[in-house]
Amino acid sequence: MPQAVSPSDPAMPWLDAVKWSADGLVPAIAQDAASGRVLMLAWMDRDALARTAATGEAHYWSRSRGRQWRKGESSGHVQKVRELRLDCDGDAVLLVVEQVGGISCHTGRERCFYRQLEADRWITVEPVIKDPRVIYSHD
Amino acid sequence: MPQAVSPSDPAMPWLDAVKWSADGLVPAIAQDAASGRVLMLAWMDRDALARTAATGEAHYWSRSRGRQWRKGESSGHVQKVRELRLDCDGDAVLLVVEQVGGISCHTGRERCFYRQLEADRWITVEPVIKDPRVIYSHD
Repeated sequence: MPQAVSPSDPAMPWLDAVKWSADGLVPAIAQDAASGRVLMLAWMDRDALARTAATGEAHYWSRSRGRQWRKGESSGHVQKVRELRLDCDGDAVLLVVEQVGGISCHTGRERCFYRQLEADRWITVEPVIKDPRVIYSHD
Repeated sequence: MPQAVSPSDPAMPWLDAVKWSADGLVPAIAQDAASGRVLMLAWMDRDALARTAATGEAHYWSRSRGRQWRKGESSGHVQKVRELRLDCDGDAVLLVVEQVGGISCHTGRERCFYRQLEADRWITVEPVIKDPRVIYSHD
């Protein structure tokens, strides 16, 4: 259970510095602290960002499922946040993370950006480390 | 003048693999090829992504100005694209770039993610390399 946070807490004016979209979200980039690789891009609502800061573990908002999720809650592939950064316009967040298990993508790959453009085609250039059926078998 | 591209060209089905937002945009992360630092997050429309691939220089869509822009068109801080990647869901793009001039941010800093959360405050942790008034003085 994440630490309880109150997004409207006046003691958290740093959340007001974020320019939330009309949907109340901000894009969040996760970068691996060790390798420097960009792992994924996901979205956060205000509460997810507050919980991320409060717990030190990445929380996101799933647009497809319409709910907040703690990264790794099913897979165990938690992201421990080492740095939390905001961009110049306040409309994008960067998380430098320790990626538990070395896998951030639901396909079982290290990261979500595993396709590269080569001669007008997206080519898969990174291997599956662990079968997703094994990762999510306890669900 | 960028190479002419036709976004509806049937020879570019790779553009159809991108899941464009309702506004016809996709978030694009630029990462420095040399340092591995995440420089910025911007947005691309279909034509900007096509031009980026065709010219090897990053083109974005400015939501505030409502127009496409070639990164560096005013500042000279062009981004030469070394890798173009797509994520698992097809709704985010990663550019690994050579950042000409070593400055990607309009504030004159190396990158836009220069504020870091420390004890509930965003602290500026990276210096201005060049005064923006000098960078944009020829406008």
